[in-house]
Amino acid sequence: MKIETKTARFTNPLYLESGRILEPYEIIYETYGTLNEDKSNVIVICHALAGSHHAAGRYADEAKPGWWDKFIGDGKAIDTTKYFVICTNNIGSCFGSTNPMSPNYPSNEPYRFKFPVLTISDIVKAQRNLFDSLGIHHVRAVIGGSMGGMQALCYAIEHPRFADIVIPMATTAYTRPWAIAFNKIAMEAVRHDPAFNNGHYDKDDLLANGLPGLAIGRMAGLIGYLSPTLFNKKFSRNYAHTDGLYELFGRFEVERYLEYNSYSFPKIFDPLSYLYICKTMNIFDAGRNKDKLEDSFSKIKCKLHLISFSDDMLFFPEEMEEIYDIMCKIGKEEQVTYKMIESESGHDSFLVEVHKFENYVKDILEEKI
Amino acid sequence: MKIETKTARFTNPLYLESGRILEPYEIIYETYGTLNEDKSNVIVICHALAGSHHAAGRYADEAKPGWWDKFIGDGKAIDTTKYFVICTNNIGSCFGSTNPMSPNYPSNEPYRFKFPVLTISDIVKAQRNLFDSLGIHHVRAVIGGSMGGMQALCYAIEHPRFADIVIPMATTAYTRPWAIAFNKIAMEAVRHDPAFNNGHYDKDDLLANGLPGLAIGRMAGLIGYLSPTLFNKKFSRNYAHTDGLYELFGRFEVERYLEYNSYSFPKIFDPLSYLYICKTMNIFDAGRNKDKLEDSFSKIKCKLHLISFSDDMLFFPEEMEEIYDIMCKIGKEEQVTYKMIESESGHDSFLVEVHKFENYVKDILEEKI
Repeated sequence: MKIETKTARFTNPLYLESGRILEPYEIIYETYGTLNEDKSNVIVICHALAGSHHAAGRYADEAKPGWWDKFIGDGKAIDTTKYFVICTNNIGSCFGSTNPMSPNYPSNEPYRFKFPVLTISDIVKAQRNLFDSLGIHHVRAVIGGSMGGMQALCYAIEHPRFADIVIPMATTAYTRPWAIAFNKIAMEAVRHDPAFNNGHYDKDDLLANGLPGLAIGRMAGLIGYLSPTLFNKKFSRNYAHTDGLYELFGRFEVERYLEYNSYSFPKIFDPLSYLYICKTMNIFDAGRNKDKLEDSFSKIKCKLHLISFSDDMLFFPEEMEEIYDIMCKIGKEEQVTYKMIESESGHDSFLVEVHKFENYVKDILEEKI
Repeated sequence: MKIETKTARFTNPLYLESGRILEPYEIIYETYGTLNEDKSNVIVICHALAGSHHAAGRYADEAKPGWWDKFIGDGKAIDTTKYFVICTNNIGSCFGSTNPMSPNYPSNEPYRFKFPVLTISDIVKAQRNLFDSLGIHHVRAVIGGSMGGMQALCYAIEHPRFADIVIPMATTAYTRPWAIAFNKIAMEAVRHDPAFNNGHYDKDDLLANGLPGLAIGRMAGLIGYLSPTLFNKKFSRNYAHTDGLYELFGRFEVERYLEYNSYSFPKIFDPLSYLYICKTMNIFDAGRNKDKLEDSFSKIKCKLHLISFSDDMLFFPEEMEEIYDIMCKIGKEEQVTYKMIESESGHDSFLVEVHKFENYVKDILEEKI
């Protein structure tokens, strides 16, 4: 499967929900598969907090494939011999699209905290501008998990003629205080790290020396992404060997895991991006006011296929079931399905338990469901 | 109800599980009610992580009563007109008993990281020395929640003739990786705070300026102590007013709550104590090795009444049910009861939903159950 990584630059202003303007802006994106003649085989993939445009395939110089490589590829559920798959890096994220460390045109200085707060709607609007520039005004499906699922819902509600099928996974119609609280740890830990320097960090220093605040925030994230059951299964009460780094005796496997996966994080993720994306997730509310969810969902024209995971401790299955119930309540039961996958990897199941839903999604795309 | 606050000093060495010795050590404690002539009306209360010996009543100069005041007092479930109630401040904790900031005798310098790691067994052993010094060698009951429940379990197993009745609440027989992970955030956040200075902080500076690392750790704790349902009910997606302190717009009520309750925490709690107590909880394992729980529980002679809370997200009801199952499996079904309280305050229910279990505990103490 061929990966095409491209960057598009837009000089027209992007009018944001906050009233501010992003101008110019860039979007880096990847495509897999071939666009057919009538442009009717497009599938849009939306990524989550720490994800990127690199959803599938392997770069020549890297061992690790894209984040949804089990799901997307030749002969896979999202079959790139049939579909033309596009995944963009969200604006605000640090993998190539315009983000808080991009130059604040016309200066060459990075935005830092001058970057505007983005909403999910803003991110989706920017993606649509990219698709328009490629001559794609309608797609077969939009699929995404977690924050990618928020984007999927946004497509269904705010761009009702854009996709035939929308598949939000492991997500919510509005971020609950439980998820906001996990993000709060990250935001406070970053904010108080002296090396963060109120956003005026030196990027090279940060890459060389890490940023404990972001690592600690990532730790909170990792707890929210997994589940007590998985923790028990994966780590039990096993001890990791003691390496002298710690003042108090003995280190548990789970501690080692959290250290390993969090202290490396600031090397690959930017702290300002992290803060802005947490904020974007926190303020997501498909109803703009949750009493108005019915109004929002009444706009939906596509088939909406909701997938939750039984042990998701960040966006609980009840949150997706609520969307299903509202769709039914407003008379759209023909347009909606809801499936809860019995999972054991918590919120991260949408990433790691692909084998449990790939056939189901394949059937959806083939309109068997 | 009269509160008597006293301090006992012990000059005999306390031999710790780690092989180290604590010598001398002090225990601050409170008693409520009157010890009867044959010393048969004693109830021991064990406190949790951030608790203290001040379990009940009001000091003359304070508006806030002791942490279990709803539960303990004249005419209350733990009736101080009948019982003589003792609550000690655990060694290691920062409210008056010997802790990492106590002088490392014979020097006047605080122990700091030279303080020994304590186990739940060590803490209970120290308490028993206090009780012995008061001529109390047997008690009616031991009651405690969370880390206090660990102590209660330890009494039942390691001091089998000491109490007639033991009531562990909202606790576990061995700390799972999920709870260890929450503590990990706290331990890392404290460790990386420059003001913590690797344990060599200036206490006055800390009281004046706070310690964001401990506040962030407390935030993680607060999330674990509550529940998603409670968060929804308490905060929904309401915004707190924006006060200009925050770089990104709008602050949610849940964020304000976490800030308020965590940034004040370093004013009342010591960071080294916090680290040491987290460690004590992490290493608690009533079976010493969880395959050996049966061996441990086979030693129990008292009546063991287990109480869990349905929405406890730190020590899940299943963890207490496991203890009940093991007790039954080893033929001790006559000695054990298990009750799950339908709660809506998460792990903290043992502190705040006293009305849901007070009559039940009263019946236990009166041997109706």
